[in-house]
Amino acid sequence: MKLSARNQLKGKIVGVTKGATTSHVKIDVGGGKVITSSITNQAVEELNLKEGDVAYAIVKASDVMIAVD
Amino acid sequence: MKLSARNQLKGKIVGVTKGATTSHVKIDVGGGKVITSSITNQAVEELNLKEGDVAYAIVKASDVMIAVD
Amino acid sequence: MKLSARNQLKGKIVGVTKGATTSHVKIDVGGGKVITSSITNQAVEELNLKEGDVAYAIVKASDVMIAVD
Amino acid sequence: MKLSARNQLKGKIVGVTKGATTSHVKIDVGGGKVITSSITNQAVEELNLKEGDVAYAIVKASDVMIAVD
Amino acid sequence: MKLSARNQLKGKIVGVTKGATTSHVKIDVGGGKVITSSITNQAVEELNLKEGDVAYAIVKASDVMIAVD
Amino acid sequence: MKLSARNQLKGKIVGVTKGATTSHVKIDVGGGKVITSSITNQAVEELNLKEGDVAYAIVKASDVMIAVD
Repeated sequence: MKLSARNQLKGKIVGVTKGATTSHVKIDVGGGKVITSSITNQAVEELNLKEGDVAYAIVKASDVMIAVD
Repeated sequence: MKLSARNQLKGKIVGVTKGATTSHVKIDVGGGKVITSSITNQAVEELNLKEGDVAYAIVKASDVMIAVD
Repeated sequence: MKLSARNQLKGKIVGVTKGATTSHVKIDVGGGKVITSSITNQAVEELNLKEGDVAYAIVKASDVMIAVD
Repeated sequence: MKLSARNQLKGKIVGVTKGATTSHVKIDVGGGKVITSSITNQAVEELNLKEGDVAYAIVKASDVMIAVD
Repeated sequence: MKLSARNQLKGKIVGVTKGATTSHVKIDVGGGKVITSSITNQAVEELNLKEGDVAYAIVKASDVMIAVD
Repeated sequence: MKLSARNQLKGKIVGVTKGATTSHVKIDVGGGKVITSSITNQAVEELNLKEGDVAYAIVKASDVMIAVD
């Protein structure tokens, strides 16, 4: 499957925290950068996401803001 | 100003493409990773964004999906 | 590639309208339902999206609101 | 009330799962398609959403990505 | 129609700028606050949005970030 | 830090509700308008958000829909 999303960052899962309905998954994408994702518990279970897995952080361009100092 | 957004990736602007109302800004965040952002022309002008500038790509955790191969 | 997104609606592309930087892609997902997507021109070109192609409309659960009459 | 959102899919609620602050609501929009929405518990209570109710899944065009096989 | 969105700010349209596919609509919600919305041209036409109209800016809670000085 | 986000509404925090992984923060932005934000618990802790604090509700223009009566 190929995605329209402009941002597809490959990395390794370094944390999965489950809440009541929502989980937080952290992906180390290299260069000291860790991306945090908030997804449903159901997605975590379906994809069987766990620490050490290779995964991608996917972000649509329209969801990226810019900041400057 | 400090932001709640979990993802604040520092990098250098490597491209600014203006459309009629919407611009695309590309930020090289290191490690061969370039983030594309779609923002208003007005924001590009107000922040005076241009190639070579240091900038941050800001993404809320709830806007990050996960994919696996 | 498997995605965390809870909503992955298969259909057929029935329209691609290109703007200056942003395109609108319409996907007929059956049952008289057409989904409109707003993505970058670059994504349209990279995926070579055109009328008649089979495609999926992908939506993260946190981007779905509910309305009642 | 009329909405700018391009995607307004009418259906029937087939599941409401409440978490600590966030609920997941599933809407069967016909043709075997079920949409999952993640909204606040407060919204679920205010709209009094429950299984069997007619409801709409509302999605802004800029929140729809496209995928192809 | 009642919406799950936590944020529904009533105001008056003070600007509509059309681009090639995307429009920017500005709503004065009072107290000197103007909200900018980026929506499809098609939505602007369908709702016949124009300066002086009463309208609501609608934002899902999961799309609101917090900042502090 | 300056942000591309078109909507940066200054106000006072009037409520912080923590869930298992997700918190809801309410900001009174004046004129009787209260904005609800859904962010990670981690963000609430890092920014040390609490009732009475001055804070900004930040919303990207592409996350604002329009409604009319």
